Amino acid sequence: MIYLDNASTTKPSQGARDAALAAFENFGNPSSLHRLGMDAEKIIRNTGDDIARVLGVDAKNIYFTSGGTESNNTAIFGYVRGNKKRGNHIITTAIEHPSVLEPFHILEKEGFEVTYLPVDKSGAINLDDLKNALRSDTILVSVMTVNNETGVIQPFEKLKEIMKGYSPKAALHCDGVQGFCKIDIKPKKCGIDMLSVSAHKIHGIKGTGALYIADGVHIAPIIAGGGQQKNIRSGTENVVGIAAFGGAVRSFKRISRNKRTELAEKLTQKIDNISINGEGLNSGYVLNVSFLGTKAEILLHSLEAKGIYVSSGSACSSNHPAPSHVLTAMGKTAEEIRGAIRVSFSDEDFDTDFVAETVKNEVDKIRKYVR
Amino acid sequence: MIYLDNASTTKPSQGARDAALAAFENFGNPSSLHRLGMDAEKIIRNTGDDIARVLGVDAKNIYFTSGGTESNNTAIFGYVRGNKKRGNHIITTAIEHPSVLEPFHILEKEGFEVTYLPVDKSGAINLDDLKNALRSDTILVSVMTVNNETGVIQPFEKLKEIMKGYSPKAALHCDGVQGFCKIDIKPKKCGIDMLSVSAHKIHGIKGTGALYIADGVHIAPIIAGGGQQKNIRSGTENVVGIAAFGGAVRSFKRISRNKRTELAEKLTQKIDNISINGEGLNSGYVLNVSFLGTKAEILLHSLEAKGIYVSSGSACSSNHPAPSHVLTAMGKTAEEIRGAIRVSFSDEDFDTDFVAETVKNEVDKIRKYVR
Repeated sequence: MIYLDNASTTKPSQGARDAALAAFENFGNPSSLHRLGMDAEKIIRNTGDDIARVLGVDAKNIYFTSGGTESNNTAIFGYVRGNKKRGNHIITTAIEHPSVLEPFHILEKEGFEVTYLPVDKSGAINLDDLKNALRSDTILVSVMTVNNETGVIQPFEKLKEIMKGYSPKAALHCDGVQGFCKIDIKPKKCGIDMLSVSAHKIHGIKGTGALYIADGVHIAPIIAGGGQQKNIRSGTENVVGIAAFGGAVRSFKRISRNKRTELAEKLTQKIDNISINGEGLNSGYVLNVSFLGTKAEILLHSLEAKGIYVSSGSACSSNHPAPSHVLTAMGKTAEEIRGAIRVSFSDEDFDTDFVAETVKNEVDKIRKYVR
Repeated sequence: MIYLDNASTTKPSQGARDAALAAFENFGNPSSLHRLGMDAEKIIRNTGDDIARVLGVDAKNIYFTSGGTESNNTAIFGYVRGNKKRGNHIITTAIEHPSVLEPFHILEKEGFEVTYLPVDKSGAINLDDLKNALRSDTILVSVMTVNNETGVIQPFEKLKEIMKGYSPKAALHCDGVQGFCKIDIKPKKCGIDMLSVSAHKIHGIKGTGALYIADGVHIAPIIAGGGQQKNIRSGTENVVGIAAFGGAVRSFKRISRNKRTELAEKLTQKIDNISINGEGLNSGYVLNVSFLGTKAEILLHSLEAKGIYVSSGSACSSNHPAPSHVLTAMGKTAEEIRGAIRVSFSDEDFDTDFVAETVKNEVDKIRKYVR
């Protein structure tokens, strides 16, 4: 099996597994006053430290959630609803993950004015578009660090500086799910007020995420109750998942060579009528390729039969087959979108020649029948 | 170690562990179109079947969440916000878990009229109080199945019948977290429209819960995004936690003898000036006792030193030391509340004589110093 669907989810690392198994023994409720509770709470604190270290922030600013989706929802709903007296305008991009876009759609229906920043064919937003969109009543800007379908890095480091000049009251949220650990993200250095991260994209397990919230940023919680996580997120913490998250962070290894460039070159050499989607600066973890004259779903399943696992678009939208909103925003043609495959990498090595050759063979077969 | 804090959280059962470990191997994203995704999705479906079987409902009505708190929040916020055009009055009880009470407090601030049903010293609500509270504009009634601090069973089976006569439009939500698997709860038989359950109270792991939603009940999701869980709860599912939930359900064993009665009798025989809190029908899983002239926190830690783990009040409120709202609602005195310990059981056996004797010794010591 060659698993190249790491932007959907990753295989738990040994570090994550070991930490999860150890946490099974510390089964206390982190809110309990006795030792078993304190042992469980220590696991949570340790993972907070691990995440904070990577981000160069204080662990007290890390809050645990059930995943990237909840982190994004908490940041967006929480900030906008908690600060609605300050303004009625919010900004995001056309290429965000559904867990950002849907909250914006809902807020739009509730009466907020929303600007969706476009992207060009590079797959990145343009800073001038942001400048033009910012207003004195803008309260939130939400831009992802790395796009999940293309791997294109957004200019997240330059946003806050521009925002200060036009919308000094606005907060900056970044969906860091596809960037965390994989590229450098330092919230304090670039003025990110809220950053969402997720465990299962870095070889942790599904069901755990975190949200960095800078000092002084006010959030109206979306889940209320016992007051865990300093009242930002109630509910008994997922200790096993949080333990695994820490293990995953500690054992995460960045890709040592650029497999994306290598595979893109080999595919381009071997197969005609293909296009690489997203020429912008790439995280190196995602390669989005359109094979003209094919259908992604068919190609995905024929590659699966050869032991190669990739995805058509993002896993999150696989349940709702619709043309990719990301590729659409990039101005891709219907044929390019229909034949787009996402290959996403981990530090696990694989034979790029074998993959390129197999893709070529399958594309050739499909083109015969689809055309 | 004698762990008697099972209402806070439970030790994962072997069934839960085995299922979790197996799920580590099925690491695919349940939304992925390839086999790895389908294998993961199957785990979710299987646990849905397990939960549905216990409740006597259809698995399609089971939605997974990150825990009991989120299930309660989803039911209450989701139902009330999704049905606000139908009425402005909502009802709950004075003894609910904070994950029910806090959403009601927030909705009250948003302009909804809230009735908090009282309880008598038995620890249960009175059906006449419900009758008197119901109005034609009541849209939601939320009553727990079993109280988490006392183990007292609420008359949840009789609520819907009464509601029909006075508020035919109102939906019934029950927090089933402390009752699920431990007592019979059949939503369809007694007209429960929404039921919250949690894995870690039945020897699963923390971070997974579920919400039963009856056919035709409309919910406005509190977490939006990729549309997982039929759009009721977006976010990649916690496959490992859900697997463990299924294992926990399948291997759950009800207590075979009434340890609560046994321990209560022995404590009453050995120690003077104590009172058992909650004379109402009990689940058998919780014993709440006040040792007059002591302080619960001190007693908790002195018992811990002897290897006996209990709790003062509920774990969820341990972070916010305040007099128990449950015991306060039951009309207990300040001294009774201050000295109240919650002992909560599992099917694991223990020596009730040893526990009673140890409690007696520690209570005697504390009484000397505290008085």
